Amino acid sequence: MRRQAAEDAFVDRLVRGFTRSPGQINRPHESDAELVRLPGSELVLAVTVDQIVEEVRAGLYDDPYLLGWMTVAASASDLAAVGAAPLGVVIGHVLRPDTSDAALDALQRGIADAANAAGLPVLGGDTAFDSAASTSATAFGVVAGGAAMTRRGAAIGDRLFATGPLGSGSVFAWAKRRGETAPRFLPAPRLDAGALARGFASAAADTSDGALAACDLLLPPEGVDVVWDAPPEAYLHPDAARLAAGLGIPPWMLLAGPHGEFELLLAVPEAAAGGLVDIARSRGIRFLDLGRFAAGTGAVRFPGAGVSIDPAAVRDAQRAAPADPRAFLRALGEAARPLSARDREVTPHATR
Amino acid sequence: MRRQAAEDAFVDRLVRGFTRSPGQINRPHESDAELVRLPGSELVLAVTVDQIVEEVRAGLYDDPYLLGWMTVAASASDLAAVGAAPLGVVIGHVLRPDTSDAALDALQRGIADAANAAGLPVLGGDTAFDSAASTSATAFGVVAGGAAMTRRGAAIGDRLFATGPLGSGSVFAWAKRRGETAPRFLPAPRLDAGALARGFASAAADTSDGALAACDLLLPPEGVDVVWDAPPEAYLHPDAARLAAGLGIPPWMLLAGPHGEFELLLAVPEAAAGGLVDIARSRGIRFLDLGRFAAGTGAVRFPGAGVSIDPAAVRDAQRAAPADPRAFLRALGEAARPLSARDREVTPHATR
Repeated sequence: MRRQAAEDAFVDRLVRGFTRSPGQINRPHESDAELVRLPGSELVLAVTVDQIVEEVRAGLYDDPYLLGWMTVAASASDLAAVGAAPLGVVIGHVLRPDTSDAALDALQRGIADAANAAGLPVLGGDTAFDSAASTSATAFGVVAGGAAMTRRGAAIGDRLFATGPLGSGSVFAWAKRRGETAPRFLPAPRLDAGALARGFASAAADTSDGALAACDLLLPPEGVDVVWDAPPEAYLHPDAARLAAGLGIPPWMLLAGPHGEFELLLAVPEAAAGGLVDIARSRGIRFLDLGRFAAGTGAVRFPGAGVSIDPAAVRDAQRAAPADPRAFLRALGEAARPLSARDREVTPHATR
Repeated sequence: MRRQAAEDAFVDRLVRGFTRSPGQINRPHESDAELVRLPGSELVLAVTVDQIVEEVRAGLYDDPYLLGWMTVAASASDLAAVGAAPLGVVIGHVLRPDTSDAALDALQRGIADAANAAGLPVLGGDTAFDSAASTSATAFGVVAGGAAMTRRGAAIGDRLFATGPLGSGSVFAWAKRRGETAPRFLPAPRLDAGALARGFASAAADTSDGALAACDLLLPPEGVDVVWDAPPEAYLHPDAARLAAGLGIPPWMLLAGPHGEFELLLAVPEAAAGGLVDIARSRGIRFLDLGRFAAGTGAVRFPGAGVSIDPAAVRDAQRAAPADPRAFLRALGEAARPLSARDREVTPHATR
């Protein structure tokens, strides 16, 4: 068994005394959204809660419009990762008593715009007042006809797809944490791609904590590695590639979060990959073909870069969450080790 | 039209830019839980979010077990008020980094015990860390076969029922705010009574913000009063009656919250009242028969006490939320006016 990230161990501790619902499909850590059968129905309800607290404290979302957008989009992205059709969202506001009318209006516009973009109507909410602001959202969706996607199910031989270029969330966070001008950042959750992929993918997770954290969540308990065949230009957002070059750090570090975006990573059996890509293309959805699941020990391998990453160690570095991004990069370095010459061989990158 | 409480006006402002879900049954303020039709199904999903923030800051829930209990019970009570069958709850934790193992375990035990008592399994959650703690819960349930109860529908001639004695929440809050020893307080949500009442009641609301706030929510927009025929001993919890006597304040002030309990107030058409009480008794559920809805101007009348209360003014006094309970009592006094001699006539109190 490979090492468990500290966050997963903490969650196990939180839930150990709880009585499990007989209708719940997923176990802890197994799914981006909780999945529960609706009694007297063929439907599965998908439910997910996300709180935006640390990001506000760190100053990442000092723009109230962005805070509103991210509040809704973060929970919508979890629905996308299970392939659910969006049903609605309820919002928890914690407001400072001195919140200006303009800030409150901008917050609500961000919520409304993200809700409209995701097709996820705001059903209601609750407002509290406190000396420090935060938000939360609980999104609901429905899975009809077939099983929901979970994080469990990737197998050796599966391909690794992404719904779009990665690393823009890290670029945004890096700039904000260093007090520099951040690029425009209003990431869209991939609900259409998730709903489409549900019939094809063996497993899925979103990149809200970075793509390497998503890999950790997708890796089976033992015996499997993720191998990124793709060269950096195939998976990094252009801003992320530029930042990596400017900082002189390896491109994979831009996949290490902890502030991600809302792409999906999908494990897709080889036999289903062509069909998914064809149908997706006919609907205007493009997938990036990043690599594959291969026999291994729970690592994420980048043959082109010559490194192997322990993705649980990446998540632990995120959790330690140093306010200093350079200290975080040093911790990341300790999660990597050089690949053997044999493992540096790059499988020819498939074009889809 | 009677006056709108400031809280309702604030919510109207928050939601004005939102696109309404075509499947949502209730409008803002109309229901303790949001009600949305599940596509491709006869089921209605009931969803409600409650944040526990101010209560933690005020020191009311300095016992982590109680905080855990109240987190779940508050949202479960909203499901009870719409008559939904509980399906599950997701929890939002905001924890201080220095939370002790013992405090965290007690918090989780309170959550687990309330979840088990309500038959509302914890399906998942999200944890954030911050310098001040709080919790939230989003509960959801299903309404099958017939319409959900809402706050809308009470009519002149309906009876006013409660699921149990009122005011224990105010007693608890009074003691805690004054640094005195508080009585044991682990209020149970009335899910069984709510599910039973759904076929009989014209409207329902819980007393989580006090019974007078619930009356405000149940009163139609114009032309109707609530008249409490019941003498104080019929509706006040014994601790509340004792506190009112000890403080020398009128018993109705113990119904004014803002910290209530989780009883339900129900409007029940006179023709349905006998049937509801009979079936309830056969299941071991007792309803208190408090009074009736009568022609009026949006007031809550206590003929025995000779006062008429503006329940929107009570809610506004709650919202102003003075930390000093005596200042709150003064504000309450301004929400009351003497009843005319004619209106002091007490209808003989029915025994059910």
